[in-house]
Amino acid sequence: MIPTMIRSLMLAGLLLGAAAPATIAQAADPLASWNPGQSKESIVAFVRAVTTPGSGHYVPAAERIAVFDNDGTLWPEQPMYFQLFFTLDRARALAPDHPEWQTQEPFASALKGDVKGVFAGGEHALLELVMATHSGMTTDEFEQLVSNWMAAARHPTTDKLFTQMVYQPMLELLEYLRYYGFKTFIVSGGGIDFMRPWTAKVYGIPREQVVGSSGKLKFEVRDGTPVIEKLAEINFIDDKADKPVGIQQHIGRRPIAAFGNSDGDLDMLTWTCSGTGQRFCLYLHHTDASREWAYDRQSPIGRLDQGLDVARDKGWTVVDMKNDWNTIYPPDTR
Amino acid sequence: MIPTMIRSLMLAGLLLGAAAPATIAQAADPLASWNPGQSKESIVAFVRAVTTPGSGHYVPAAERIAVFDNDGTLWPEQPMYFQLFFTLDRARALAPDHPEWQTQEPFASALKGDVKGVFAGGEHALLELVMATHSGMTTDEFEQLVSNWMAAARHPTTDKLFTQMVYQPMLELLEYLRYYGFKTFIVSGGGIDFMRPWTAKVYGIPREQVVGSSGKLKFEVRDGTPVIEKLAEINFIDDKADKPVGIQQHIGRRPIAAFGNSDGDLDMLTWTCSGTGQRFCLYLHHTDASREWAYDRQSPIGRLDQGLDVARDKGWTVVDMKNDWNTIYPPDTR
Repeated sequence: MIPTMIRSLMLAGLLLGAAAPATIAQAADPLASWNPGQSKESIVAFVRAVTTPGSGHYVPAAERIAVFDNDGTLWPEQPMYFQLFFTLDRARALAPDHPEWQTQEPFASALKGDVKGVFAGGEHALLELVMATHSGMTTDEFEQLVSNWMAAARHPTTDKLFTQMVYQPMLELLEYLRYYGFKTFIVSGGGIDFMRPWTAKVYGIPREQVVGSSGKLKFEVRDGTPVIEKLAEINFIDDKADKPVGIQQHIGRRPIAAFGNSDGDLDMLTWTCSGTGQRFCLYLHHTDASREWAYDRQSPIGRLDQGLDVARDKGWTVVDMKNDWNTIYPPDTR
Repeated sequence: MIPTMIRSLMLAGLLLGAAAPATIAQAADPLASWNPGQSKESIVAFVRAVTTPGSGHYVPAAERIAVFDNDGTLWPEQPMYFQLFFTLDRARALAPDHPEWQTQEPFASALKGDVKGVFAGGEHALLELVMATHSGMTTDEFEQLVSNWMAAARHPTTDKLFTQMVYQPMLELLEYLRYYGFKTFIVSGGGIDFMRPWTAKVYGIPREQVVGSSGKLKFEVRDGTPVIEKLAEINFIDDKADKPVGIQQHIGRRPIAAFGNSDGDLDMLTWTCSGTGQRFCLYLHHTDASREWAYDRQSPIGRLDQGLDVARDKGWTVVDMKNDWNTIYPPDTR
């Protein structure tokens, strides 16, 4: 009745396989979309150091925690955060029930697709818009809305499904790290409930390894059916100094590797790379205006200003997307 | 350079091994501390159903989430929650810096070891005591305090280390479930930062799979050193209707199996077992006054009243600890 060592290993293999098919790690070059150079070398050297027993930098598997920002790090964030496209679509869908939105900001701007108008109200207006469109339903209902939208909505510039616009080099990196025993987490300012329905399929990151911004929730039994209701109240904004807080609340351990692209990720990278032992911090620098977008110090979305200086000062890896990546997106057949 | 399938399986085996040595699952009876009978049979039948492909009840590994209450479910909670012993010890250690505590409740009672006096102030007094003793330091400092205390403090009745008082049958159950591809989580009203330093070693549950009550945190760079400070403000109380909320926030998926022992777990079990497909809910009923403690409907700590009725009504498994378990604690050699 009792399984043998072989069975145990097979089972383990199957379990891991469910989250992260080993196709890329088994390819001739597991980081094939990364051009030879400093960025790629720094990744490989770090992974080799912390996974080689007796290297002096060896880190036990349980401590190999790697955290990834999402917007601008695993997929683009231009011309605006992808969740905002979803939010505007939700506002349009809900508008018939809210005649007052026709004249009330930020809803009036949202319904006209006037993103600048929405942003004119500042962070408060944006949050008001998100709260109004992401609440008043159960978590199960919201999940269905997100899944339906993800299966159909397309990016205005590329006409791709949003899940087809994830960065191929980062997919390879995620799988490479997992192959070497890392546990990969998303730590994003985006909505936790917006990401979880698709991160396992798209990134190989299960929903329990997704940290993000959230609204308050309420459990109740409604007509005999237990539900969790999404309330129109902010619970947690997972950005800037609260990224290390989100990490502590959800993971409870300081990561040894962190990946981001904006000043909003700086505290997460600082927290990660100030730990003892070998650490790895990487910034994606959006430098590819033809294949993706080029922006940094002046961009209202995904601004990378202070972070760029700190990265250079501390010797973190700064990926030049134009020169370091030979591919941006996966083939459309995925 | 590229690892083979064999290497991949070995690596996977090693990783799992780090969290959960396969010793018990490989023993002649992986649930040896459970006497034959309905409780044991119900566990085995459920696991067989959801892990047998083509059984009609098969659940993919990614969805095999099992949640466990801690106090009274994985270890005892009498004569009071173990974290309260830690709290009283902390209060004594901090007392010299707080002369006002000698006369101010709930501190005065705490310093006299008068738990009834502490409880007389209700939940608010208890929280005040916990907040005052669990904050004003960094997360790293708190972790060290907990680890030191856990290595030395002993239970007043058994004189065992608290980590030696975990339930052997539950350790076997945790490992049994993990062997069959379940991901095991703690979902406890206890402090998340109090549990995480030792759950991996004691239960095989890594800290990122621990959900609990928490205080607010603040990230800051202090004299050039990044720290996360524990603030004296409640963030989340993971009890009753907020257990399903904690599950949603941390796991983002409804479990298929839930284990508890008190009315505080009822909403978690209700949420778990109201999902579609095969589900498993289990209550531990503390019935063993000689080897452990016997209490249920009248107990101020770990009251099991409404939950017992619901469990019988819904046909959940109710473990009679006296008759269903042939062992309570692991041998002291662990």
